[in-house]
Amino acid sequence: MSVALVGAGPGDPGLITVRGLELLRACDAVVYDRLVADELVAEVADDALRICRDGLDQASVDRLLVELGRELDVVRLKGGDPFVFGRGGEEALTLVEAGIAVEVVPGVSSVAAVPAAASIPVTHRDVADRVTIATAHAADGAEPDYETLARVGGTLVLFMGLARIEAVARGLVAGGMSAETPAAVVSRGTLPDQETVTAPLAELPERAAGLCGPALVVVGDVVTLRERLTPGPALLSA
Amino acid sequence: MSVALVGAGPGDPGLITVRGLELLRACDAVVYDRLVADELVAEVADDALRICRDGLDQASVDRLLVELGRELDVVRLKGGDPFVFGRGGEEALTLVEAGIAVEVVPGVSSVAAVPAAASIPVTHRDVADRVTIATAHAADGAEPDYETLARVGGTLVLFMGLARIEAVARGLVAGGMSAETPAAVVSRGTLPDQETVTAPLAELPERAAGLCGPALVVVGDVVTLRERLTPGPALLSA
Repeated sequence: MSVALVGAGPGDPGLITVRGLELLRACDAVVYDRLVADELVAEVADDALRICRDGLDQASVDRLLVELGRELDVVRLKGGDPFVFGRGGEEALTLVEAGIAVEVVPGVSSVAAVPAAASIPVTHRDVADRVTIATAHAADGAEPDYETLARVGGTLVLFMGLARIEAVARGLVAGGMSAETPAAVVSRGTLPDQETVTAPLAELPERAAGLCGPALVVVGDVVTLRERLTPGPALLSA
Repeated sequence: MSVALVGAGPGDPGLITVRGLELLRACDAVVYDRLVADELVAEVADDALRICRDGLDQASVDRLLVELGRELDVVRLKGGDPFVFGRGGEEALTLVEAGIAVEVVPGVSSVAAVPAAASIPVTHRDVADRVTIATAHAADGAEPDYETLARVGGTLVLFMGLARIEAVARGLVAGGMSAETPAAVVSRGTLPDQETVTAPLAELPERAAGLCGPALVVVGDVVTLRERLTPGPALLSA
């Protein structure tokens, strides 16, 4: 009678943690995000309840976890890391307030893993000594604070940026970032059909046309390392 | 004949990835960071070569990986994620330039996992929609750009901040951040002897006296969520 919030990692099923997989195999019920690998959902016991959260709003997910967590050992399997834009904090709070035992098992976040799969280290000596992570969709629907993001320096990683790639590029340039800043979109990172495009920031929207989500936008000089690291590393060639 | 740069995760050996553990069990040699869990090093085959990198400078590590990688299947086991302040990019570049096949297996970074283990989600709806990650030690020994870090908003996560906690707190306040900003130090996060202190930023150095490394400094309103999430979640109670 507990709920484990488990990070499934960025896509490749081999990137779940050992502890996460152990809990998944032992659980009575799994509530999983649509983007989680089928191979992971297939790891649960044959008689376990499997619920895709697709089509449920957040309030319904919260209530479902509370109800199931009273009776069963539940795994809430979330893409990436539960606490990096995963709304894991909200789910954990709801469960704690309902008196249900919660375990959080962090996952490999897309933040560094997806750029890595495209041969882009998000930090690199003498190139970037800081990373800022943001979403292109503010919670209230407002635009991100492009002026601040444009000036923070180092590497910028934007979640959910593909659908808003034009606004992102325009906003960062308007905020003071050079239109020539090296930038990349990595689509379906760590999966077999991963695609990457790189371009100067202002040209990125045009170059990224036609890519599929989920995708991550990476902006900063670390993007230039991709050329030096490719085709060498058979990154994530598992 | 390859080198895999494998992230061991933040400390708890259960937080290595399934793919990382698979490579570790199959390798001929492991070169590991001092802070990696003994339990993980114990997973390599009895006849595999085990080398702790402690005491080797980075140039020696690079050369060692090239030499071993010509003859053996090598795992370079690194704390956290290889590409988040792990100098994985440098090691990967060296190997690529030497013509050695490289695989990068990302790991659970301390960035979100260590705060999570202290019941602090680094992002949370209506509290923080961005995270900036930096080190308290710039590569060239210079001070971090506290003025920018103080103004970026959202959550700030500082690596290697414990030894320089006084300079960090002073620098951020001098840079314009409120002395009352909620802040935390999480020492030995995800390990059995984990310790956490929280305090307003200006009082953090005094409160953190006596904590051991490795430690992460977290600054921002998300720190206040810890109270609401504790003692509820038996986080990482594995």
